[in-house]
Amino acid sequence: MQALGKRRWAMAGGHIPLESNGPEPEFTSRDELSVLNCSDTAARIRIHIHYADRPAVGPYELEIAAKRVRHIRFNDLIFPEAPPLDEPFGAVIDADVPVVVQFTRLDGGTRARSAVATAAYPERTSSRRRPR
Amino acid sequence: MQALGKRRWAMAGGHIPLESNGPEPEFTSRDELSVLNCSDTAARIRIHIHYADRPAVGPYELEIAAKRVRHIRFNDLIFPEAPPLDEPFGAVIDADVPVVVQFTRLDGGTRARSAVATAAYPERTSSRRRPR
Amino acid sequence: MQALGKRRWAMAGGHIPLESNGPEPEFTSRDELSVLNCSDTAARIRIHIHYADRPAVGPYELEIAAKRVRHIRFNDLIFPEAPPLDEPFGAVIDADVPVVVQFTRLDGGTRARSAVATAAYPERTSSRRRPR
Amino acid sequence: MQALGKRRWAMAGGHIPLESNGPEPEFTSRDELSVLNCSDTAARIRIHIHYADRPAVGPYELEIAAKRVRHIRFNDLIFPEAPPLDEPFGAVIDADVPVVVQFTRLDGGTRARSAVATAAYPERTSSRRRPR
Repeated sequence: MQALGKRRWAMAGGHIPLESNGPEPEFTSRDELSVLNCSDTAARIRIHIHYADRPAVGPYELEIAAKRVRHIRFNDLIFPEAPPLDEPFGAVIDADVPVVVQFTRLDGGTRARSAVATAAYPERTSSRRRPR
Repeated sequence: MQALGKRRWAMAGGHIPLESNGPEPEFTSRDELSVLNCSDTAARIRIHIHYADRPAVGPYELEIAAKRVRHIRFNDLIFPEAPPLDEPFGAVIDADVPVVVQFTRLDGGTRARSAVATAAYPERTSSRRRPR
Repeated sequence: MQALGKRRWAMAGGHIPLESNGPEPEFTSRDELSVLNCSDTAARIRIHIHYADRPAVGPYELEIAAKRVRHIRFNDLIFPEAPPLDEPFGAVIDADVPVVVQFTRLDGGTRARSAVATAAYPERTSSRRRPR
Repeated sequence: MQALGKRRWAMAGGHIPLESNGPEPEFTSRDELSVLNCSDTAARIRIHIHYADRPAVGPYELEIAAKRVRHIRFNDLIFPEAPPLDEPFGAVIDADVPVVVQFTRLDGGTRARSAVATAAYPERTSSRRRPR
């Protein structure tokens, strides 16, 4: 199966809920990126997180093995900096091979549970070089 | 009405919830693909499921009759293998005629109910051959 | 402001929930299309509804005034036929001027409330004639 | 990092829920636009809100600093007019540099909580001039 997707994605509506309720990690409130790599090689991705009131932080570097999917919780990112809870953010995801990205939030707070999901924004680039 | 949509779709954020609560099958927690076939001929689709830690499984082969819609629960897929609950996955859907695909999750667990829906990612292909 | 959007949209994941709970019409469970018409002329739209097991029904004909938005509940459609509750469906929306379409479901059943929203699929057509 | 996104976006499914429950502003029901500006210069955006039964209102003018994200609640807009609760609306967002826009609703009413999110519709324009 050939590679599929785009090499650059973005999402604007990030906000990790403050409260969680229920057994961890299943019910931990979180914002999550899902990355599908259908190509024959590992995908190295670099995430930059943008905030409302301070400079962007990144890159967060991760790898998705060939022909695998990986669900990445922003809550679990550590280096260069753990993202704060309860603060608006956006993210830009750059990959060295085409991937498909989805954004999901689970809000498992004490009052009720809600969830949202939306496709990330796929930037339609023309012939970008493969970063190294 | 002419065919409409794309022949290749992908989704990255699959995860069938473990818990269900309420009468089946209405309130069974599930991840679901909705496929709309507006063309004059039956659409044969092939789904490949990608996991985090093991090789992709597929194809799951299904048919959507001409000018019909079909909602497919991942929970109900059996051959070549029933997808596990509570495990991250992604999916690639290939059809031999253009179709429109949407992804929906109902989480009807014991604590609360939540639901998400998002358009699958439509791969913008140029003149792919009709698979047989 | 010039027209904006597309003239053909589709959605695959329709399913009007059976149960409702709370004062009507605010909490009536429903599937809803939201149509934004930014053009200088009224938009006439025609909806065809596709089912799993029987022929498509339509057109449902509606108008959205110039520079107005209209939220259309499938539950409220009557002619040529009221759509059934609790049955999978998809829909194709054709407009004579470009519009923007979003799909939303409110499930306000007796157990809990959930909601989903997703962009409809915008068909990227090249120079289609304006239907009359 | 170069600019990313589009300069024109639209959303059709706006509707600020009437009821709120819980501490403000965290649990205030709202409709929200999230705007990500990855460019090197501040983005000036102009929002026009379209209604079902009366003329569009706008522009609402806002700025998103260079390399920042901003989450904008429709509830908080004041000039030229505070948007009413419990009324259908759509919105068109014009920016002078490319941005990425997401739409989110939190419905934190007294009965239950639900949330939806969806990508706004990115108008694919060819070489539009930078507005001033």
